[in-house]
Amino acid sequence: MRKIILASASPRRREILAGAGIHFEIITSGAEEKSIKTDPAELVEELSYIKASGTDTLVKDSDSVVIGADTVVACDGKILGKPESEEDALKMLTLLQGRTHQVYTGVTILYGGRGERKRKTFHECTDVTCYPVSREEILEYIRTGEPMDKAGAYGIQGLWGIYVQKICGDYNNVVGLPAARLIHEAKKLGIDLRNSGKENTSC
Amino acid sequence: MRKIILASASPRRREILAGAGIHFEIITSGAEEKSIKTDPAELVEELSYIKASGTDTLVKDSDSVVIGADTVVACDGKILGKPESEEDALKMLTLLQGRTHQVYTGVTILYGGRGERKRKTFHECTDVTCYPVSREEILEYIRTGEPMDKAGAYGIQGLWGIYVQKICGDYNNVVGLPAARLIHEAKKLGIDLRNSGKENTSC
Repeated sequence: MRKIILASASPRRREILAGAGIHFEIITSGAEEKSIKTDPAELVEELSYIKASGTDTLVKDSDSVVIGADTVVACDGKILGKPESEEDALKMLTLLQGRTHQVYTGVTILYGGRGERKRKTFHECTDVTCYPVSREEILEYIRTGEPMDKAGAYGIQGLWGIYVQKICGDYNNVVGLPAARLIHEAKKLGIDLRNSGKENTSC
Repeated sequence: MRKIILASASPRRREILAGAGIHFEIITSGAEEKSIKTDPAELVEELSYIKASGTDTLVKDSDSVVIGADTVVACDGKILGKPESEEDALKMLTLLQGRTHQVYTGVTILYGGRGERKRKTFHECTDVTCYPVSREEILEYIRTGEPMDKAGAYGIQGLWGIYVQKICGDYNNVVGLPAARLIHEAKKLGIDLRNSGKENTSC
Protein backbone atom coordinates (compact mmCIF):
# COMPACT_ATOMS: atom_id res chain seq x y z
CA MET A 1 0.00 0.00 0.00
CA ARG A 2 1.07 3.56 -0.78
CA LYS A 3 2.94 5.33 2.01
CA ILE A 4 2.07 8.88 3.07
CA ILE A 5 5.03 10.94 4.27
CA LEU A 6 4.80 14.32 5.96
CA ALA A 7 7.93 16.41 5.31
CA SER A 8 7.48 18.56 8.41
CA ALA A 9 8.61 18.38 12.03
CA SER A 10 5.75 20.63 13.20
CA PRO A 11 3.75 18.94 15.97
CA ARG A 12 0.73 21.00 14.92
CA ARG A 13 0.79 19.66 11.34
CA ARG A 14 1.19 16.15 12.69
CA GLU A 15 -1.86 16.60 14.94
CA ILE A 16 -4.02 18.02 12.14
CA LEU A 17 -3.12 15.20 9.74
CA ALA A 18 -3.65 12.50 12.37
CA GLY A 19 -6.93 14.16 13.43
CA ALA A 20 -8.11 13.94 9.81
CA GLY A 21 -7.77 10.17 10.03
CA ILE A 22 -4.66 9.94 7.83
CA HIS A 23 -1.91 7.38 8.56
CA PHE A 24 1.54 8.70 7.78
CA GLU A 25 5.23 8.80 8.62
CA ILE A 26 7.35 11.88 9.26
CA ILE A 27 10.63 12.32 7.39
CA THR A 28 12.41 15.66 7.37
CA SER A 29 15.47 16.46 5.28
CA GLY A 30 16.90 19.60 6.83
CA ALA A 31 16.92 21.11 3.32
CA GLU A 32 17.71 24.82 3.48
CA GLU A 33 14.43 26.72 3.40
CA LYS A 34 15.39 29.88 1.53
CA SER A 35 13.53 31.85 -1.08
CA ILE A 36 13.80 35.31 -2.62
CA LYS A 37 10.06 35.50 -3.30
CA THR A 38 8.34 38.54 -1.83
CA ASP A 39 4.76 37.53 -2.58
CA PRO A 40 3.48 35.47 0.38
CA ALA A 41 1.55 32.99 -1.79
CA GLU A 42 4.55 32.37 -4.07
CA LEU A 43 6.86 32.17 -1.05
CA VAL A 44 4.95 29.47 0.84
CA GLU A 45 4.39 27.48 -2.35
CA GLU A 46 8.14 27.51 -3.09
CA LEU A 47 9.12 26.65 0.50
CA SER A 48 6.58 23.80 0.62
CA TYR A 49 8.18 22.42 -2.53
CA ILE A 50 11.71 22.73 -1.10
CA LYS A 51 10.61 20.77 2.00
CA ALA A 52 8.77 18.10 0.02
CA SER A 53 11.53 17.58 -2.54
CA GLY A 54 14.24 17.50 0.17
CA THR A 55 12.38 14.66 1.88
CA ASP A 56 11.59 12.98 -1.44
CA THR A 57 15.30 12.32 -2.06
CA LEU A 58 15.40 10.31 1.19
CA VAL A 59 12.32 8.18 0.46
CA LYS A 60 12.92 4.66 -0.83
CA ASP A 61 9.36 3.53 -1.68
CA SER A 62 8.72 4.49 -5.28
CA ASP A 63 4.95 4.94 -4.87
CA SER A 64 4.96 7.08 -1.74
CA VAL A 65 3.15 10.41 -1.43
CA VAL A 66 5.25 13.18 0.12
CA ILE A 67 3.56 16.26 1.58
CA GLY A 68 5.45 19.49 2.31
CA ALA A 69 3.94 22.63 3.86
CA ASP A 70 5.04 26.10 4.88
CA THR A 71 3.13 28.87 6.66
CA VAL A 72 3.68 32.63 6.91
CA VAL A 73 1.65 35.58 8.14
CA ALA A 74 1.24 38.67 5.95
CA CYS A 75 0.22 42.10 7.23
CA ASP A 76 0.66 45.55 5.75
CA GLY A 77 2.86 44.20 2.96
CA LYS A 78 5.18 42.59 5.52
CA ILE A 79 5.78 38.83 5.64
CA LEU A 80 6.15 37.44 9.15
CA GLY A 81 7.80 34.08 9.74
CA LYS A 82 8.84 32.78 13.17
CA PRO A 83 10.10 35.51 15.53
CA GLU A 84 13.84 35.62 16.10
CA SER A 85 13.57 37.02 19.63
CA GLU A 86 11.02 38.13 22.18
CA GLU A 87 11.45 41.72 20.96
CA ASP A 88 10.64 40.48 17.46
CA ALA A 89 7.53 38.69 18.79
CA LEU A 90 6.45 41.91 20.52
CA LYS A 91 6.81 43.85 17.25
CA MET A 92 4.82 41.23 15.31
CA LEU A 93 1.97 40.97 17.82
CA THR A 94 1.77 44.76 18.17
CA LEU A 95 1.36 44.92 14.39
CA LEU A 96 -1.31 42.17 14.30
CA GLN A 97 -3.57 43.25 17.19
CA GLY A 98 -6.75 45.23 16.46
CA ARG A 99 -6.89 44.48 12.74
CA THR A 100 -7.10 41.84 10.00
CA HIS A 101 -4.10 39.97 8.58
CA GLN A 102 -3.63 36.99 6.28
CA VAL A 103 -2.21 33.56 6.97
CA TYR A 104 -0.82 31.69 3.95
CA THR A 105 0.04 28.02 3.93
CA GLY A 106 1.63 26.51 0.83
CA VAL A 107 1.36 22.76 0.25
CA THR A 108 3.22 20.52 -2.18
CA ILE A 109 2.21 16.94 -2.92
CA LEU A 110 4.82 14.75 -4.68
CA TYR A 111 3.40 11.50 -6.04
CA GLY A 112 3.62 8.95 -8.85
CA GLY A 113 6.26 6.31 -9.61
CA ARG A 114 9.97 7.02 -9.27
CA GLY A 115 11.47 8.46 -12.47
CA GLU A 116 8.19 10.13 -13.29
CA ARG A 117 7.55 11.97 -10.06
CA LYS A 118 4.63 14.39 -10.33
CA ARG A 119 3.98 17.54 -8.34
CA LYS A 120 0.92 19.44 -7.20
CA THR A 121 1.44 22.72 -5.36
CA PHE A 122 -1.25 25.05 -4.02
CA HIS A 123 -1.76 27.59 -1.26
CA GLU A 124 -4.62 28.50 1.00
CA CYS A 125 -5.16 31.97 2.50
CA THR A 126 -7.20 32.74 5.63
CA ASP A 127 -8.09 36.19 6.95
CA VAL A 128 -7.67 36.52 10.71
CA THR A 129 -9.09 39.49 12.66
CA CYS A 130 -7.76 40.18 16.17
CA TYR A 131 -9.37 42.21 18.93
CA PRO A 132 -7.30 45.12 20.24
CA VAL A 133 -4.68 43.68 22.64
CA SER A 134 -2.77 45.82 25.14
CA ARG A 135 1.04 45.86 25.38
CA GLU A 136 0.74 44.27 28.82
CA GLU A 137 -1.41 41.45 27.46
CA ILE A 138 1.07 40.88 24.61
CA LEU A 139 3.99 40.75 27.06
CA GLU A 140 2.03 38.29 29.24
CA TYR A 141 1.42 36.12 26.16
CA ILE A 142 5.11 36.22 25.18
CA ARG A 143 6.02 35.05 28.70
CA THR A 144 4.05 31.83 28.07
CA GLY A 145 6.70 30.89 25.49
CA GLU A 146 4.05 30.07 22.89
CA PRO A 147 5.10 32.62 20.21
CA MET A 148 8.68 31.56 19.59
CA ASP A 149 8.20 28.65 17.15
CA LYS A 150 5.19 30.05 15.32
CA ALA A 151 4.80 32.14 12.16
CA GLY A 152 3.47 35.57 13.15
CA ALA A 153 4.37 34.80 16.79
CA TYR A 154 1.01 33.33 17.76
CA GLY A 155 -0.94 30.09 17.89
CA ILE A 156 -4.67 30.46 17.18
CA GLN A 157 -5.21 27.07 18.85
CA GLY A 158 -3.33 28.29 21.95
CA LEU A 159 -3.73 31.17 24.35
CA TRP A 160 -3.74 33.79 21.58
CA GLY A 161 -7.10 32.33 20.51
CA ILE A 162 -8.87 34.55 23.05
CA TYR A 163 -7.77 37.58 21.04
CA VAL A 164 -9.07 36.30 17.70
CA GLN A 165 -12.39 37.92 16.86
CA LYS A 166 -13.04 36.01 13.64
CA ILE A 167 -11.47 34.25 10.72
CA CYS A 168 -12.56 33.89 7.13
CA GLY A 169 -11.20 30.79 5.45
CA ASP A 170 -9.84 27.45 6.68
CA TYR A 171 -9.10 27.25 10.42
CA ASN A 172 -6.50 24.49 10.15
CA ASN A 173 -4.70 26.60 7.55
CA VAL A 174 -4.00 29.11 10.33
CA VAL A 175 -2.72 26.32 12.58
CA GLY A 176 -0.40 25.20 9.77
CA LEU A 177 -2.01 22.72 7.37
CA PRO A 178 -5.26 23.06 5.36
CA ALA A 179 -6.11 19.36 5.70
CA ALA A 180 -9.58 19.57 4.09
CA ARG A 181 -8.16 21.23 0.94
CA LEU A 182 -5.21 18.80 0.94
CA ILE A 183 -7.54 15.78 1.00
CA HIS A 184 -9.69 17.40 -1.71
CA GLU A 185 -6.71 18.17 -3.97
CA ALA A 186 -5.26 14.68 -3.48
CA LYS A 187 -8.63 13.14 -4.39
CA LYS A 188 -8.54 15.06 -7.67
CA LEU A 189 -5.13 13.44 -8.35
CA GLY A 190 -6.62 9.99 -7.72
CA ILE A 191 -5.07 9.70 -4.23
CA ASP A 192 -7.30 8.72 -1.31
CA LEU A 193 -5.15 9.96 1.59
CA ARG A 194 -7.52 8.56 4.24
CA ASN A 195 -7.27 5.02 2.90
CA SER A 196 -3.56 5.01 2.14
CA GLY A 197 -0.62 4.32 4.42
CA LYS A 198 -2.63 2.29 6.93
CA GLU A 199 0.26 -0.12 7.48
CA ASN A 200 2.31 2.80 8.82
CA THR A 201 2.67 2.59 12.55
CA SER A 202 4.48 5.78 13.47
CA CYS A 203 1.40 8.05 13.59
CA MET B 1 -12.34 35.61 44.94
CA ARG B 2 -15.23 35.51 42.50
CA LYS B 3 -16.20 32.03 41.29
CA ILE B 4 -16.81 31.27 37.62
CA ILE B 5 -19.46 28.63 36.96
CA LEU B 6 -20.17 27.01 33.61
CA ALA B 7 -23.81 25.89 33.37
CA SER B 8 -23.11 23.25 30.72
CA ALA B 9 -22.19 19.58 30.72
CA SER B 10 -20.63 19.79 27.24
CA PRO B 11 -17.06 18.48 27.27
CA ARG B 12 -16.30 20.73 24.28
CA ARG B 13 -17.35 23.91 26.12
CA ARG B 14 -15.30 22.80 29.12
CA GLU B 15 -12.22 22.31 26.91
CA ILE B 16 -12.62 25.70 25.20
CA LEU B 17 -13.01 27.55 28.51
CA ALA B 18 -10.07 25.73 30.12
CA GLY B 19 -7.96 26.29 26.98
CA ALA B 20 -8.66 30.02 27.29
CA GLY B 21 -6.97 29.97 30.69
CA ILE B 22 -10.16 30.35 32.72
CA HIS B 23 -10.60 28.58 36.07
CA PHE B 24 -14.16 27.45 36.65
CA GLU B 25 -16.55 24.92 38.10
CA ILE B 26 -19.34 23.09 36.30
CA ILE B 27 -22.84 23.08 37.78
CA THR B 28 -25.81 21.95 35.69
CA SER B 29 -29.43 22.21 36.79
CA GLY B 30 -31.30 19.93 34.42
CA ALA B 31 -33.71 22.85 33.80
CA GLU B 32 -36.04 22.06 30.91
CA GLU B 33 -34.55 23.60 27.78
CA LYS B 34 -37.69 24.51 25.82
CA SER B 35 -38.47 27.54 23.73
CA ILE B 36 -41.06 28.46 21.13
CA LYS B 37 -38.71 30.88 19.37
CA THR B 38 -38.25 30.22 15.66
CA ASP B 39 -35.45 32.71 15.03
CA PRO B 40 -32.13 30.93 15.68
CA ALA B 41 -30.49 33.95 17.35
CA GLU B 42 -33.46 34.49 19.70
CA LEU B 43 -33.68 30.75 20.36
CA VAL B 44 -30.06 30.27 21.48
CA GLU B 45 -30.15 33.45 23.54
CA GLU B 46 -33.28 32.23 25.37
CA LEU B 47 -31.93 28.72 25.91
CA SER B 48 -28.60 30.07 27.19
CA TYR B 49 -30.55 32.13 29.71
CA ILE B 50 -32.65 29.12 30.80
CA LYS B 51 -29.45 27.11 31.42
CA ALA B 52 -27.69 29.94 33.25
CA SER B 53 -30.66 30.85 35.46
CA GLY B 54 -31.37 27.18 36.28
CA THR B 55 -27.83 26.81 37.57
CA ASP B 56 -27.95 30.20 39.27
CA THR B 57 -30.66 28.99 41.66
CA LEU B 58 -28.24 26.27 42.86
CA VAL B 59 -25.26 28.56 43.43
CA LYS B 60 -24.55 29.65 47.00
CA ASP B 61 -21.76 32.22 46.51
CA SER B 62 -23.40 35.58 46.03
CA ASP B 63 -20.66 37.05 43.85
CA SER B 64 -20.27 34.16 41.41
CA VAL B 65 -20.43 34.54 37.64
CA VAL B 66 -22.63 31.96 35.90
CA ILE B 67 -22.21 31.28 32.17
CA GLY B 68 -24.86 29.48 30.11
CA ALA B 69 -24.58 28.64 26.40
CA ASP B 70 -26.63 26.96 23.71
CA THR B 71 -25.74 26.14 20.09
CA VAL B 72 -27.88 25.38 17.03
CA VAL B 73 -27.27 25.08 13.31
CA ALA B 74 -29.49 26.95 10.83
CA CYS B 75 -29.82 26.10 7.15
CA ASP B 76 -32.52 26.91 4.62
CA GLY B 77 -34.78 28.35 7.33
CA LYS B 78 -34.53 25.11 9.32
CA ILE B 79 -33.08 24.99 12.84
CA LEU B 80 -31.05 21.87 13.58
CA GLY B 81 -30.36 20.79 17.14
CA LYS B 82 -28.90 17.41 18.11
CA PRO B 83 -30.08 14.53 15.88
CA GLU B 84 -32.64 12.19 17.42
CA SER B 85 -31.50 9.16 15.42
CA GLU B 86 -28.97 8.11 12.80
CA GLU B 87 -31.63 8.70 10.10
CA ASP B 88 -32.04 12.22 11.46
CA ALA B 89 -28.25 12.73 11.34
CA LEU B 90 -28.22 11.51 7.72
CA LYS B 91 -30.94 14.05 6.81
CA MET B 92 -29.09 16.90 8.53
CA LEU B 93 -25.69 16.15 6.99
CA THR B 94 -27.24 15.65 3.54
CA LEU B 95 -28.76 19.12 3.90
CA LEU B 96 -25.50 20.71 5.08
CA GLN B 97 -23.00 19.24 2.57
CA GLY B 98 -21.96 21.26 -0.48
CA ARG B 99 -23.20 24.62 0.82
CA THR B 100 -23.01 27.31 3.50
CA HIS B 101 -24.97 27.20 6.76
CA GLN B 102 -24.90 29.18 10.00
CA VAL B 103 -23.96 28.15 13.51
CA TYR B 104 -25.46 30.21 16.33
CA THR B 105 -24.30 30.09 19.92
CA GLY B 106 -26.15 32.11 22.52
CA VAL B 107 -24.39 33.02 25.76
CA THR B 108 -25.79 34.39 29.01
CA ILE B 109 -23.62 35.81 31.80
CA LEU B 110 -25.30 36.21 35.22
CA TYR B 111 -23.30 38.35 37.64
CA GLY B 112 -23.49 40.83 40.48
CA GLY B 113 -24.49 40.40 44.11
CA ARG B 114 -27.43 38.22 45.18
CA GLY B 115 -30.71 40.13 45.16
CA GLU B 116 -29.49 42.37 42.41
CA ARG B 117 -28.45 39.74 39.89
CA LYS B 118 -27.59 41.23 36.49
CA ARG B 119 -27.73 39.60 33.09
CA LYS B 120 -25.86 39.98 29.81
CA THR B 121 -27.01 37.86 26.86
CA PHE B 122 -25.56 37.84 23.37
CA HIS B 123 -25.15 35.51 20.42
CA GLU B 124 -22.42 34.89 17.89
CA CYS B 125 -23.04 33.59 14.35
CA THR B 126 -20.47 31.82 12.16
CA ASP B 127 -20.91 30.87 8.49
CA VAL B 128 -19.65 27.36 7.70
CA THR B 129 -19.16 26.15 4.12
CA CYS B 130 -18.87 22.40 3.49
CA TYR B 131 -17.40 20.64 0.46
CA PRO B 132 -19.77 18.26 -1.34
CA VAL B 133 -19.88 15.02 0.68
CA SER B 134 -21.21 11.74 -0.78
CA ARG B 135 -23.93 9.65 0.90
CA GLU B 136 -21.33 6.92 1.50
CA GLU B 137 -18.99 9.38 3.22
CA ILE B 138 -21.86 10.69 5.37
CA LEU B 139 -22.83 7.14 6.39
CA GLU B 140 -19.18 6.38 7.22
CA TYR B 141 -19.08 9.52 9.38
CA ILE B 142 -22.30 8.56 11.18
CA ARG B 143 -20.78 5.14 11.95
CA THR B 144 -18.03 6.89 13.97
CA GLY B 145 -20.73 7.92 16.47
CA GLU B 146 -19.56 11.53 16.45
CA PRO B 147 -22.81 13.14 15.22
CA MET B 148 -25.22 12.01 17.90
CA ASP B 149 -24.55 14.55 20.65
CA LYS B 150 -23.87 17.53 18.39
CA ALA B 151 -26.07 20.31 16.99
CA GLY B 152 -26.29 19.85 13.22
CA ALA B 153 -24.92 16.31 13.63
CA TYR B 154 -21.26 17.22 13.17
CA GLY B 155 -18.16 18.30 15.06
CA ILE B 156 -15.92 20.73 13.16
CA GLN B 157 -13.10 19.79 15.53
CA GLY B 158 -13.63 16.10 14.77
CA LEU B 159 -13.65 13.98 11.64
CA TRP B 160 -16.21 16.20 9.86
CA GLY B 161 -13.50 18.88 9.79
CA ILE B 162 -12.11 17.38 6.58
CA TYR B 163 -15.35 18.36 4.83
CA VAL B 164 -15.30 22.00 5.97
CA GLN B 165 -14.00 24.23 3.18
CA LYS B 166 -14.07 27.48 5.13
CA ILE B 167 -15.71 29.38 7.93
CA CYS B 168 -16.39 33.07 8.40
CA GLY B 169 -16.64 34.08 12.05
CA ASP B 170 -15.44 32.60 15.34
CA TYR B 171 -14.17 28.99 15.16
CA ASN B 172 -14.88 28.16 18.80
CA ASN B 173 -18.42 29.39 18.27
CA VAL B 174 -18.90 26.44 15.91
CA VAL B 175 -17.44 24.06 18.50
CA GLY B 176 -19.90 25.44 21.07
CA LEU B 177 -18.60 28.51 22.92
CA PRO B 178 -17.29 31.83 21.52
CA ALA B 179 -14.69 32.23 24.26
CA ALA B 180 -12.97 35.30 22.78
CA ARG B 181 -16.28 37.21 22.58
CA LEU B 182 -17.27 35.96 26.05
CA ILE B 183 -14.04 37.27 27.59
CA HIS B 184 -14.50 40.54 25.69
CA GLU B 185 -18.12 40.99 26.82
CA ALA B 186 -17.25 40.11 30.42
CA LYS B 187 -14.43 42.66 30.38
CA LYS B 188 -16.95 45.35 29.36
CA LEU B 189 -18.98 44.37 32.46
CA GLY B 190 -15.89 44.81 34.64
CA ILE B 191 -15.29 41.06 34.98
CA ASP B 192 -11.82 39.68 34.26
CA LEU B 193 -12.68 36.02 33.64
CA ARG B 194 -9.03 34.98 33.29
CA ASN B 195 -8.08 36.30 36.71
CA SER B 196 -11.16 35.13 38.57
CA GLY B 197 -11.95 31.78 40.10
CA LYS B 198 -8.32 30.71 40.50
CA GLU B 199 -9.01 29.01 43.78
CA ASN B 200 -11.34 26.62 41.96
CA THR B 201 -9.75 23.22 41.58
CA SER B 202 -12.27 21.29 39.52
CA CYS B 203 -11.09 22.53 36.10
